[in-house]
Order: sequence, then structure tokens, then C-alpha cells
Amino acid sequence: MANALSLADSGTALPFKVADLTLAEAGRHQIRLAENEMPGLMALRAEFGESKPLAGARIAGSLHMTVQTAVLIETLVALGAQVRWASCNIFSTQDEAAAAIAVGPHGSVDAPAGVPVFAWKGETLEDYWWCTQQIFDWTAEAAASGADWIGPNLILDDGGDATLLVHSGRDFELAGAVPADAAGDSHEYRVILAALRASLATSHDRWTRIAAGIIGVTEETTTGVHRLYELARDGKLLFPAINVNDSVTKSKFDNKYGIRHSLPDGLNRATDVLIGGKVVFVAGYGDVGKGAAEALRGQGARVIVSEIDPINALQAAMDGFQVARIESVVEQVDIFITGTGNLNVITTEHLLRMKHLAIVANVGHFDNEIDMAGLEDLAGAEKIEIKPQVHEWRLPTGRSVLVLSEGRLMNLGNATGHPSFVMSNSFTNQVLAQIELYCYPEKYPVGVYVLPKHLDEKVARLHLDALGVELTELTPEQAAYIGVSVDGPYKVDHYRY
Amino acid sequence: MANALSLADSGTALPFKVADLTLAEAGRHQIRLAENEMPGLMALRAEFGESKPLAGARIAGSLHMTVQTAVLIETLVALGAQVRWASCNIFSTQDEAAAAIAVGPHGSVDAPAGVPVFAWKGETLEDYWWCTQQIFDWTAEAAASGADWIGPNLILDDGGDATLLVHSGRDFELAGAVPADAAGDSHEYRVILAALRASLATSHDRWTRIAAGIIGVTEETTTGVHRLYELARDGKLLFPAINVNDSVTKSKFDNKYGIRHSLPDGLNRATDVLIGGKVVFVAGYGDVGKGAAEALRGQGARVIVSEIDPINALQAAMDGFQVARIESVVEQVDIFITGTGNLNVITTEHLLRMKHLAIVANVGHFDNEIDMAGLEDLAGAEKIEIKPQVHEWRLPTGRSVLVLSEGRLMNLGNATGHPSFVMSNSFTNQVLAQIELYCYPEKYPVGVYVLPKHLDEKVARLHLDALGVELTELTPEQAAYIGVSVDGPYKVDHYRY
Amino acid sequence: MANALSLADSGTALPFKVADLTLAEAGRHQIRLAENEMPGLMALRAEFGESKPLAGARIAGSLHMTVQTAVLIETLVALGAQVRWASCNIFSTQDEAAAAIAVGPHGSVDAPAGVPVFAWKGETLEDYWWCTQQIFDWTAEAAASGADWIGPNLILDDGGDATLLVHSGRDFELAGAVPADAAGDSHEYRVILAALRASLATSHDRWTRIAAGIIGVTEETTTGVHRLYELARDGKLLFPAINVNDSVTKSKFDNKYGIRHSLPDGLNRATDVLIGGKVVFVAGYGDVGKGAAEALRGQGARVIVSEIDPINALQAAMDGFQVARIESVVEQVDIFITGTGNLNVITTEHLLRMKHLAIVANVGHFDNEIDMAGLEDLAGAEKIEIKPQVHEWRLPTGRSVLVLSEGRLMNLGNATGHPSFVMSNSFTNQVLAQIELYCYPEKYPVGVYVLPKHLDEKVARLHLDALGVELTELTPEQAAYIGVSVDGPYKVDHYRY
Amino acid sequence: MANALSLADSGTALPFKVADLTLAEAGRHQIRLAENEMPGLMALRAEFGESKPLAGARIAGSLHMTVQTAVLIETLVALGAQVRWASCNIFSTQDEAAAAIAVGPHGSVDAPAGVPVFAWKGETLEDYWWCTQQIFDWTAEAAASGADWIGPNLILDDGGDATLLVHSGRDFELAGAVPADAAGDSHEYRVILAALRASLATSHDRWTRIAAGIIGVTEETTTGVHRLYELARDGKLLFPAINVNDSVTKSKFDNKYGIRHSLPDGLNRATDVLIGGKVVFVAGYGDVGKGAAEALRGQGARVIVSEIDPINALQAAMDGFQVARIESVVEQVDIFITGTGNLNVITTEHLLRMKHLAIVANVGHFDNEIDMAGLEDLAGAEKIEIKPQVHEWRLPTGRSVLVLSEGRLMNLGNATGHPSFVMSNSFTNQVLAQIELYCYPEKYPVGVYVLPKHLDEKVARLHLDALGVELTELTPEQAAYIGVSVDGPYKVDHYRY
Repeated sequence: MANALSLADSGTALPFKVADLTLAEAGRHQIRLAENEMPGLMALRAEFGESKPLAGARIAGSLHMTVQTAVLIETLVALGAQVRWASCNIFSTQDEAAAAIAVGPHGSVDAPAGVPVFAWKGETLEDYWWCTQQIFDWTAEAAASGADWIGPNLILDDGGDATLLVHSGRDFELAGAVPADAAGDSHEYRVILAALRASLATSHDRWTRIAAGIIGVTEETTTGVHRLYELARDGKLLFPAINVNDSVTKSKFDNKYGIRHSLPDGLNRATDVLIGGKVVFVAGYGDVGKGAAEALRGQGARVIVSEIDPINALQAAMDGFQVARIESVVEQVDIFITGTGNLNVITTEHLLRMKHLAIVANVGHFDNEIDMAGLEDLAGAEKIEIKPQVHEWRLPTGRSVLVLSEGRLMNLGNATGHPSFVMSNSFTNQVLAQIELYCYPEKYPVGVYVLPKHLDEKVARLHLDALGVELTELTPEQAAYIGVSVDGPYKVDHYRY
Repeated sequence: MANALSLADSGTALPFKVADLTLAEAGRHQIRLAENEMPGLMALRAEFGESKPLAGARIAGSLHMTVQTAVLIETLVALGAQVRWASCNIFSTQDEAAAAIAVGPHGSVDAPAGVPVFAWKGETLEDYWWCTQQIFDWTAEAAASGADWIGPNLILDDGGDATLLVHSGRDFELAGAVPADAAGDSHEYRVILAALRASLATSHDRWTRIAAGIIGVTEETTTGVHRLYELARDGKLLFPAINVNDSVTKSKFDNKYGIRHSLPDGLNRATDVLIGGKVVFVAGYGDVGKGAAEALRGQGARVIVSEIDPINALQAAMDGFQVARIESVVEQVDIFITGTGNLNVITTEHLLRMKHLAIVANVGHFDNEIDMAGLEDLAGAEKIEIKPQVHEWRLPTGRSVLVLSEGRLMNLGNATGHPSFVMSNSFTNQVLAQIELYCYPEKYPVGVYVLPKHLDEKVARLHLDALGVELTELTPEQAAYIGVSVDGPYKVDHYRY
Repeated sequence: MANALSLADSGTALPFKVADLTLAEAGRHQIRLAENEMPGLMALRAEFGESKPLAGARIAGSLHMTVQTAVLIETLVALGAQVRWASCNIFSTQDEAAAAIAVGPHGSVDAPAGVPVFAWKGETLEDYWWCTQQIFDWTAEAAASGADWIGPNLILDDGGDATLLVHSGRDFELAGAVPADAAGDSHEYRVILAALRASLATSHDRWTRIAAGIIGVTEETTTGVHRLYELARDGKLLFPAINVNDSVTKSKFDNKYGIRHSLPDGLNRATDVLIGGKVVFVAGYGDVGKGAAEALRGQGARVIVSEIDPINALQAAMDGFQVARIESVVEQVDIFITGTGNLNVITTEHLLRMKHLAIVANVGHFDNEIDMAGLEDLAGAEKIEIKPQVHEWRLPTGRSVLVLSEGRLMNLGNATGHPSFVMSNSFTNQVLAQIELYCYPEKYPVGVYVLPKHLDEKVARLHLDALGVELTELTPEQAAYIGVSVDGPYKVDHYRY
Repeated sequence: MANALSLADSGTALPFKVADLTLAEAGRHQIRLAENEMPGLMALRAEFGESKPLAGARIAGSLHMTVQTAVLIETLVALGAQVRWASCNIFSTQDEAAAAIAVGPHGSVDAPAGVPVFAWKGETLEDYWWCTQQIFDWTAEAAASGADWIGPNLILDDGGDATLLVHSGRDFELAGAVPADAAGDSHEYRVILAALRASLATSHDRWTRIAAGIIGVTEETTTGVHRLYELARDGKLLFPAINVNDSVTKSKFDNKYGIRHSLPDGLNRATDVLIGGKVVFVAGYGDVGKGAAEALRGQGARVIVSEIDPINALQAAMDGFQVARIESVVEQVDIFITGTGNLNVITTEHLLRMKHLAIVANVGHFDNEIDMAGLEDLAGAEKIEIKPQVHEWRLPTGRSVLVLSEGRLMNLGNATGHPSFVMSNSFTNQVLAQIELYCYPEKYPVGVYVLPKHLDEKVARLHLDALGVELTELTPEQAAYIGVSVDGPYKVDHYRY
């Protein structure tokens, strides 16, 4: 595969591809600091480091290759797993983290001894899908173990791309052919088809064999979970899935408190524009929008929210925000944030009506919340790079807009994503879910599951000491009065927190 | 029945018992203003006032007899129902509202023509259970319609007392006897037993007949719902129940935004003490605790939260609150608020360690969150009334504490409860639930149900215009992309808002 | 003097006039509780109760006759002063506090032994100016001391009415006549002229003699201070004045934190309307407006601010508020609050454009912030009393507005004013200012002064323990580094806090 | 002069010294974006670009050479001034801004045609004072104009270094000698003495002549202003000074809203640590501390404040913060922020008691708020660079602390300082102050002045449109009522905002 970047290809027994191995020391410093902020993962190492419940597990991981993910990867390894890793976004890799993971805690730049990782900041789409394929290629591990062939037996997914690849690859193998490109196909879909076409040319059952070996997948995004429920509904899901996204300690923490942190961080690093006093439009008042609105108000912005769900709209109003359609206010807004999970929330018509140098940024999973395709096709629009991931688009109106991270997740593209403590919650759920699938497969026939509430509570419990939280304990009398065990779980399943 | 108050017993065809009929005009003014703040109920009157879906319904209502409840009652009547009403708390009746409901919009003090209502502020427990019995006695209505006997066919409940009475009454009738008082029985339970003993002396099947006639009950409190689920689990539930409490537009609105309003209101009316700068302890960080903590911070207090659930505890910490056990901080706290749904959250040991003139108040449903029984039994403690519902307890330590509303719901006892707009959400759910049970009984076999999500969204939708909220509409393309109808419902059932 | 109210005229040696002496016990309870919340005043009693620096002082007090003022009055007495008191607003008296002050801590209803107080809730303007005159009539005290004639030697003022009366009375005596009513005179001004005309008919030098005996005045409102600076500028000021309003611990505490507490309190008691989700317009972003906006946001309102000063307007924007002219938003607003110190901020034109049942309330000193005179003259407008101090005005448009406290200070008229802790700050400044004038007259030639910074800091210091504040102490090295004494004062005079 | 960096010395007629001229294009992009955020400066260009009130002014500027300062410099040029520039901090230069200023809007890298600028990120102290001298050397300008000798006639200062150099240089010339180094002299003071010794060796009256030519200085920091008041008090001030720091639109905006933005920005860029849920200690509750506390609470931290001034301490308590001495809470705190203006606020004793990996950061002007000297001398302490401006100090206790920017201003060292909009307020004051001194010298005899209030209001006014603020206008009647002009100024001088 041709690659314009100068990457540190593995010249050793360890296969990997990262931007620059010499960043490993800097990455290791940050990993060490992050461990201090990830008490949940460190507690799992303490609890399970001896018993190694994941011994024998072979995990194909597709998740932003950041410093926090490095702590996750090394936790999985500490629990006995073998791991291969790719990022799930072309911009989100932190190259020093990837380097440190390749080198490993006991290796060196000259003798990397870490985990096979395939990720760098600024991949092309072709790079991206090449990397994603690498996490399924366990040739080296097979060789090392003397096996004829082995594949992964677990997927750890973020956004569902790894799961998609397995399902689509198998489908095309069963069909005997990859479909030709169709008129409406996105560029990315064409890249996927090309990759699978190349795969099919080499092997007629590669993905079929891989799919057969997978015990299950754990998935942590709204988007990826949505895909899983659709597969299950349509009877196409090939293996059990644990929906980590809907653990309370994930969706109500990562989505809300993570964005509260990383949204202003991304805005600041990208633009250095004062948030105070500005009018900011937040599309969507789900957990992401709630975190965004709180953060922006906390910086002195005036926040206007848009919503399509009357319940969330009413919540926004009760929280003191103006709730309006974008068309009613677009000319007054200084900064636009999308976090809806939907497409074309900001259209080219909206872009053309905005103030000069309005900032447009997305914190939803996909870049189609802003009609970037429409913008790229807009006659007379000109794109000027102010700095990486910050572009001024000069519009035919004579005004410009500033688009961050080309419409992709700006908190990852312009900042460093969600901070370690938040990710420790999400990733502790991931690890517990991997253990559930691997150790108790009988509990999980093919289908989509959430983690049982006592594990969700356990994740929270592991993060209290670090914040100095004193938990009150029920007396037996009190526990009996409300009909729960002293040790929990404490709430009915439909409780909303 | 002996009654120390001078009540306006009905001297007319209309049976009722309220404190003072001449308050009706003042009550009517407030009802008129409240209607402007209850757009959900008024919209139901507009939608269903003609078709009268509740024609034939006979509703026994047990719910705080406030101005807002008056609008609910008159909405039920506008939809065709016959109604009898009692309050569900001895202190929560607003006497002018009760008077206005008895007089009715078209009656007069001399010729009351409203709804049979049995409620006044400051009932004894004996009064209270007498009143509750009245809502099941439809003798007058039977007489008016020429029927031999009729009973209610629906219960609208808050806390479950009306439902309890029917179930217990029938149980004792089936057993042929009411149990004797036992050593550990509370005073209130003895009052109930006495009432049912008197009933059984008069009729051996009164409650059995009533129970047989009930189509269902709608219940709006956490506490009442908890009882219903227990009855259903034990196979003892006699008729279907709709759990209105767990509509999002109830639990996430009434519990949170209602308390946010009424807690500081109650504190202010009771004590006039500056909240700003004070240390306030909030026991429980559920929806009630979240609303309380937000309100108190908004007034400049420093809030310390206690929790037994690690997830809620972590939420409190992430929202910036200190989380501590009461024992660790009791000496520093100026104001204590309980809203846990549990008992003995504040014990006499805690009371004895508090600062001089610390304020102790409860916003949970029952008065046992504070150990009032223990306080009353405490040797050397003296109770001084500062004003109604505000008592200084001089403790043997030489210090005093101020207890509001004798440990009962202080937002009702010291203020006027949740404001109209919030109650409009809750009560619109109640009316929709009554319609569901009455018009579509086939959908509801015996069991406990929540309202379907589209009705929950409808409740929210009916409240948007009044707040000037502009709701964004999905395009068909967007709706298809996320797999929902343009008109909703928009979320999966486990979505937490 | 004819008085429609049934007042408890003194039938004893103690002259006073209050609504109902039997309220004294209730008032005493509240005074006792308030003392716990007024650590500054109690500390002054401890510091100066022995030395009695105000022995010989005869204080004419004109200040809202509330529970807090009762603690102030009894502090002045404890420091040796003789006191006579009237309220400075026709609605602001708390009748139980007035009764308790008349009865005194050691008197009884049958044998009142407190302070001569002339105040009741709901005075007419004629009553009001009669009461104000009584604080200057020391006939009874003269008789008791065997003196021929004595007058007060200090004024403690709020709003400047007592000071105005002395200056105007003396002016007219020097002129030999009170002017005739002129066409544009307000009703209140005519009442004042009538009172002074009656005085002049009795004595040609009453006010001249009183003025000559006054050592000085302490004044605590923006409005009253403004009058004093004008008098001083025009050379008409008759005695020195201490501007207590501009102590930091007054203007930045009472005005801001007091309103933050009492504004929502007044709204709640008057209307029970949910503040959350509502659009509230706050006219003026001075200290009062800042406190109002913070409180309303803390309750979940969306606040729109208006300002005439570009600096304050920019502050409002930087604090995240929309800043708009009333004309631009009047139709969207649910609640209007004025706190500008200016007149006609809300005109009849604005009133006619408001939403149905919009709430209109003033927290500025005078009732002309809202054009109440214009409203009263408006053809077709009808006034309906919902309850005392809450009026629905039906307008010719068919819509209504709710006006609180007839446009006067709603936090006093609809609630109980600022809470004790805030007032303790203001009143500790008042007492220190009275001591300054009385004990150190040589420091204060005729003119207007603020208290020296070390006294301002002392006021703050006396309030820290009650809030559990630990103050950090400068090391000598640190004090030298920033060029201050270890004990303060710590800031340059122009420091803005 | 020896210089380890590879700097772009001017090889052209334009004298300058910057890090890398090829950064000019990137700098120009950012300047262009900053202009959109600096409406005050752009409005001055519009108002005065024609009349050029600064024609003939020769300004020696010493102020952080950032993108925002670039807009300031080009505004001064647009108003007719000639300018030479140095940075006032060895770390604060943004090299791309310096390059763009050297190149100028119409020049190119090959033919720089901008302003003589002498600044780069990471100067040594020797570099720094060499640069500062260059802004007083107008040889090139003299040559261009054919003059024999010219010097600057205005100083624009930040921190007072430029003013110090002129005063000290002249003193030593008058004394005929520069003092020898003394035992207690800091390294920096020795560098200054060496520079002036070299100057005196070349010319006996260089600084005397420069001082004589200076019309005045404008100064914008608390620290620099403090020095000026001391010089004036001691009769040593050589020319008039305008204290820009105490304009409301500077101290209440830059200090408060600037920190609110740049403090979390600096924390995030330095550490990526989640702020939410953490315990943060903020030393000092002046404008800087208020901005810090608000920002941190807005991110979900629990903030503990320390104060030495009882008034500010009481404000902190009333704003809902715990107020404690550092000794009482040091073990619980995750992040320490100093912003007091004092020294040794955090001592080595405190550092040794902190949690492992506690973060220590300063936003006060000097690095001695944290006892960095003591830390460097601490036996057994080891310093590890995590990344530039982020150091882990391993302490003899076995725990580490993270120190940001070596104890210097972390918002400049770890982030990019205050954002453009805030700086536009500060710098508009600077430009107006330069105009005042240059155009109206008769108004300013030697002394220290603040800008008149109408100019302060003008600065605010110029920033309203950009935020969509609608300012309300007084009617003539209203203006008369409060005794001001319709156009302002609106407040008395001691008003605190």
C-alpha cells in the first residue's frame, strides 16, 4: 500500500504502522499521567491482573487511538488478552500514544515490544480501511503460536466500522461478488467496496471464517449501537453484542461530561475566539447537547438550542435556554455546534446566511451533520487552510465561515477528545463487557444486550475515591424499606438518572 | 365525627366539607390565573370538550387539593367525568381552592354547584381517612341518577392511599375481620384499622363491591407506584394501574423542576433565612435532589449531597457538589433537606449534633425521612411553634433546630406546592391515563403500565407554545435516516433524557 | 387624625401606633431567630454594650419596619441611644415586628415598654407622612427628662424622606409660607405640602429648631444618597451625611445578594408562577439587576436585560444574557422586573403590547419605574384585586397584566424584604456610621462621606464566622510585599470588588 | 550579541529580529481573523484613519508580541504613528505574529515592509533586555527622515519594563555611573545593570535625552501601575502616565473574563485532565480569582477559595464557594490556581502535602506566587519535562506534582493568553490613552491618571454591536431625572460596576 506520509513501518517481528516511533517516550509520559486519571481501569488491573480472565481472548479493537485508549489496551493485555488495534477516525489518533503502544512499556524504539497498532493522525480513507483490515489479520500471531490460521474472537468497536467490515465482507463472500459502485455512493463507501473487492480477489472465505470465530462485539457509540439494533431486528446480526453506550456510566458520563470538557477545548485550540458574550447555537439537546450547552453557558455564552423531540425541547426551555429553529436565528449566531446524530442539520443555505467568520463545528459521530458535501460542491466557494483542521470557506456572498475538522468530530480533531477520567468510565464498561462475553458466553445468545445494572454501579463505584466522594451506606432496615439489597442494584431498570 | 375546626359542611344537595366557602371567590381568581399556566390541561379541554371521552366515568380522586388540582378536576369534568375529591396530605389543601371547587364556576356560596370535595388544611389523621372514605361513597350520585347503588369506576391517586383503602378494605371483608392493633403499628395505621373496623361493622362487602367496579387507577408518585409494583408482583393487584410517575414529563419535570421552584419557596416562606452563603445538605440526588441542589446553588448556597447509589453519587460529584455522609459534615450544615424516599435519613443523633437553629426540612413523600417519632419521644426536647408549620425544637443540648411542616412535605406545607406549569405536565399525563383506562380497557389487563411514548411526547408538545419554544421538524429524509416517523416517537424506550 | 384601620393606639405612657399589639409574641419569636442571622449587629452589642457609645443620642429612624429593623433598633438601644421609628414605605411594615418593638423585650401587651414606633402595613400617604412627623416629635421624651423641648440629634434614613422633611420644613419656615399646589405636583407631594402647611400653622420654627439640633444623617439607599449629593452640590445640605449605601458591604451585598433572595421570593408569594422556562426582562444591570438576573437564571428562566450604560450592557452580554431594548422583545416576555432607579422604564405603551397575564414588578426604590400614573389614567383599564398587593389590570386590548405591589418595591410588598443576614451587613454599617457621627463629629464637617475602608472590612469580618469562612492571614513578608498592614485595609480606594 | 536561536535578522532597510519570517503568512491569517474579533480597534481605524491623530507620534511599545498585539500595532500605524516593538515577557511572543508584523500587510518575506519588531518565543534575559533597548533606538528612522537624532515620544507599556529602563538609565547617567552588582541582586537585575553599563560606556546622555523627549506613557498592568504610583509618590516620575489598567473595560474585563476563558484553556492544553468533579483551590478572589472560580464551576469542578480580604472572602461565600485556608484543605485538592498578586502563596511545605500528581498553576503576573525558588532548592526533588511548559516534580515524599509554565503565567505559557475580543477592550483603552497624551498634553501634567469615564464608556460602546447588544437610550426626561447627559457618562466615579 502506497502511503504519502513517512510512517514508521515495523521492521521487526512486531507488525504495526504509526507516524513516528520516537514519540513513544512522550506518549509513555502521558500514559503514566492518564493512569492516575483512570481509576476504573487501574482497579480492574488490580482485581483481575492475577486471574487473567481474558487469557485466550484475541481482541480486534477499532477505537480512537488516544492516550486513554492506550491505557485501555494495556488493561486488556494485563487481563490476559492479545490485542490488535486501529483508530476509528482518520483524525483522532494521537501519534505519541500510538508510538508508545507499539513500543510497549518494556520495549524500546529500536526493539518495539508492544501491541500491533495501525493508526496515525491524518489518514486518508484508503489508509483508514487498510488499517481496519489489519486488526483482523492475525497471521503473525498464528505464526508465533504455530497455528495454521487464527482470527480474532472478540471485537471492541466504536462506531461499528469493524463490525460492518465483517458483516459486509461475509455478505459479499456469500454472494460471490462485491457490488459495483452506484451513482449515489459516498466516496467512503466506494473505498470500502474497493477494499472488499481486493479481499475477495485473494480469498473467497476470509470474512466468513473471521465472522465464525467471533464470540461477540462490544460497542460504545449511539451510532454503532443503532446499527446493531437494526442488524438484530433484521435477523442479520452474526454474533452477540453488548451495547456499552447505554450503560449509565457511559451515555450519561462520556456523552455529557465528556463534551462539556472537550467542546470548549476544541473551540479554543482551533480558534482562540472568546466564547463569553457570543451567541452559540447548539443543535440537539440529548446528552451531548446538554453537555455542550452547560459548558458554553459556563463560559458566558448565550446558548440557543434546537430540538426535534418535544420532551428534550421542553427540557432545554426549563433549563433556561432559548429553543429555536436554525432558520429563525442563523444570522445572529457566532458559533454553531451540531450534536444530533442526524444529517444535514446545517445546510449550505444556512451557511450562506451566516455572519462573517461564523464558526461551524460538529460533535456528532459523522461529518454529515453539516452538509460538507454540499459545501464542497458550492460554486464560488473557496477553502483556505488557516491551520490544520481549521479552514476558512470564502463563500460567494463575500462572507466566510470557519469550519473545524472538516465537519468531523472537532473535539477529537481540534482537541484531544474526552479526558481520561471520563474515558475511564466508558472503558471500564468496555472491559467488563469483554469479560462478560468471553467468560459467560452462555448468558448471551445472538442479540444486543446492555450490561446488568450491578456492573454499571460497579463502574461508578470504582471512580468515587479518586474524587473524594463518600458514599452513604444503607442500613439493613433502610434497604428492606425500599426493597433492595444493601449492595445494590438500587434502581428499577427504567430509572432515568 | 368530631371536628375541632369550624368547617363549612354542606347544607345543600351537594355533599362536601371544606374550611370556609367564602374563600371561593379568591380561589376562583387563582384558578383563572392558573389556567393560563396550565396549557396542557386547557388543550385537552379544547381537544376533548366536545367528544367527552370521560362521559360515564366516576372518578375517586385523592390528590393534594390545591389550585392546580382544581384545574385538573374541572378538566376531568369538562371531559365528561363525575368526580369526588379528597386531599392526599393533611396539610396540603389550599382552602380557597377547595372552596372554589365546591362552589363551582357557575355556583355561588349560597348555592354551591361544584364538585363534592372533602379537604381542608390541617386535618387530623381521623379527618383524613374520613375524607378519603367519602370519595368512595357515591350515595348522593346514585340517588340523583335513580340507581340503587353505584361506586366509582376509576381512581386517580397520589401516594396510593385511595388504592390502599380499597385493597385493605376488601382483604378484611374477605377475612371477615379487621386485625387488632399490634404493638409496632403506627398511629396512622391504627386510624386506618379503626376506620375499616367501623366500615365492616356496617357492611360486609362495601369495599369488595367497590373494588369490583374499578376499571383502573392512575398513580403519580414514586411511592405509590412502588406499592403498585409490589401488589402486582405478589399477585394482589385488583385492577390495572397506569404509572404516571414514570412518564418523562412527570418524573423529570415535576420531581426536578417542581422542587427547584418550591423548595426555596418553602424555605423562604417558613424562615426568611438567606440561602446565599449557607451550607445546605441535600440527602438524595435523584430527580428531587437534583432539582433541590440546582435551586440552592442558584441562590448562592454551598451544597453538600449524600447518596447511597454510586451512579447518582458520581453524577453529583461531576455536577460540582461535595458528596459526603451526613455524619462527616453535620456540624457545619445550616439547612438539611431530605428527598430520598427512604426512612430515618436524619436521626435524633444527627439532630443533637446540629448547629443552633439549623433548619430541617423534608421534600420526600413521607415524614419518616426525618425521625420525627424519635424526636417526639426525646427526653428533654421541647417544641415551640414559631408560626404554623414552623417549629423550634429546643434540644437537651441547649441548642435548637427548626423543623418545617412537622417533617412532612415542606414545599406543600410551607409553600403552595409545585407551580401550575409543572403540574400541568403531570396532570395532563393523569388525564391521558384516565382516558386510556376508560376508553381502551382492552389494552390494559391487570398490571402496571407506563403511558406510551407518543403520549408522553404529546404532553410535552402541548406545553411548548406557552414558553415560546420553536420545535424543529425533521425532514422526511432525516426521519428516515434515524429510522423514526416525522411525528415521533423519537426515542427508544430505554432512552434516559 | 382619622384612620380607617383599627390600630393599637398607645393608651399608655409610651407613644406609638401599630396595627395589632397582640402580634408582639409572634414578632418576638421572629426577632429571636433573626438575631441568629445578624451576627454583625450582635457583635456590636457584645463590643459596645458596656461602653454605650450612643448614650445621649436621640435617633429619628425612617426605615422599613421589619423584623430585621427590629434587631437594628434594639442594637441602637443596647448601645445607649433613644430611638423613635417610622417605616419608609407604606407597604413594608411587618405588623408583628412593629408590635414587638412597641412592646419591647421586657414589656407586655398590657404594659408596652419598647420603642415609640409609628408604622403599619398598608398606610395611606396621609398616614405615612403623619408617621414620619412623629419621629421628630420628642415631646414625651422631653417630658420624661424634664426638658423644655428636645428634638432628635441624629437621623437614620432610608430613601431620604426624613431628611427631606427637615430640609423642606425649614425652607418653608424661612420663606414664611408653604407653596400652593401646582398643576404637575404628584399626589404624594401635595400630601407633604399639606402636612407642612399644617405644621407651619402651628409653629413658625419647628423644623428650623429640629434642623439645628441634628448632628448628622446616615442614609442607605442609592436614591437617598443621590438627593444628598445634590443638596451638597447646591450648598443646601444642613448637616453632615454618611453615605452608607456605598460601603461595599452594603451596595455589593444588600443590593445584589438581597435582591437575589427576595425577588424570586416576592414573585412566588405573589403569583406562584413557575419561573423556570419563562422569559424574564430585567431592566437595569447595576447591582440590583445583577442579583435579579442571577436569581432568575438560577431558577431556569431565560433572562433578557436592558441597559443604558454601555459598560454595564457589555457586562450583561459577557455574563451570557441577551441585551435588548424593551420595544424589541416586549411581546415575548412573561415577567418584567425594573430596577433602574429611573422613571417610566415601563410605559403604558409597553403594557398594552404585553402578553396576556404578563407579570410586572418593580424592585427599584420608587414606584415610577412603571408608569403607574399613566396606567391609572388609561381609559378602559380596569383593576381587579387578586389578593393584597396583586392586581390584575384588564386592558382595553382584552389582555390583562398582573401588577405587583402597585408598582412599589415588590420584594417588600409581596415578600418580607431582604433577609436578616444581608440586612445585618447593611445595618452594621448604619450603626458604625451613627457612632462615627455621634462620637467623632470633628471628622465630619457638613458634606457627604463614605465610611472608611477599615470599617467596611470590619463589617465583612463580623459576618465570616457564621458562614464557616476561614480567612487567610497575610504573613508580615506578604503584607510588606504588597504594601499594606497585616490587618488591612487591603485595597486602594478605587478598587471595585 | 550571541544568540543560540536561528533568528531572521533583518537583511533589509527594515531593522527587526524575529524567529522565522516564513511564519508571516500563518500570522497574517490569524491577524485577519483577530481583526474580526477586535471591533474596538477596527472602529478606531474607521474613526481616525483619515485624520491620523497620531501623525508624528513615535511609540516605543513593550507588550506581549501576540496576534492581538499585532492588531494593536497596525491600528497605531493606521492612526499615523511610527512604532517600534518588543515583547514584555520572554515566553509570550507568538512567532507567527511577530513575523507578520515584520513583513507587514503589504510587504513580503523577501521584502519586509512592516514594523521594527524585536521579539521571539523563548528569549534569554540578555535577549530580552537587548530587545527592550531596540525600541528606544530610532537611528534608522532618524536616517530616513534626515534628522540628526530622534527618540520616541510615547511609551506603551505592560508591566513597566520600558518605563523602568528610561528612568534607571537617566538616573545612572546623572550619577555618572551604574552601581556594581550587589549580593542580593536577582539575575535579571544584574542583566539590566550590565546593559546600562554598556550603554553608559557609549553615551553619557542617551537615556537623559530619551526621557526628555517622552510626552508620556500608558500602562496596562496592576504591577506596572503600582510602580508608577510609587514613582509619582516619591516625586521621581519623569513624564505623565495614564493608568489604563483601572479603566473598567480593562480591569473588570481583561482580568475577569479573560481569565475565565484562558485558565481552563491553559489547563486543558497542558494536562488534558478532566476538570469536572475535581476539587480546585483558587487563591485570591479579586477579578482574576472571580473569573477563575466561575470558569471552573462552569466545568463542574468544586472550587475552594482562599482570601485575605474579609470583603472578598464574604463575596466568595455569598457566591457559594467554600472559603478556607490552604493548610486546611491541601490534601484534598486536585488543582491549585494562584492569582493573588502576592508571593509565596504556595510554599514547599504545601507542595509536599499535596496529592500525587496535583496540578499547580499560576495566573498572577509574577512567578513567585508559587515558591519556585524553594522548589528548585528542595533536596531530593527531581524535575521531569512531560512536554514544554509542563513539568512533573518528583518530591522526596514519593509523590509528584505537575507544575505548569514553571510557575509563570500559565494562560500565556500553556495557552495563547486572553482572546482577541477581551484584548480589544484593553487595547482600545491603550490607543485612546495614547491619543489623549499626544493630542491633549496640556490636560496631563506629570502624574498618574485614569482615562475619563466617557472614554471608558466609549470603549464598551465600540464592542456592543459585535455581540448583538441593543443599548437602550435614555429619554431627555429620564436623563434629567437622574441628572446625567443622554450621552453619558452615566455613573459617579466611585461606582463599582
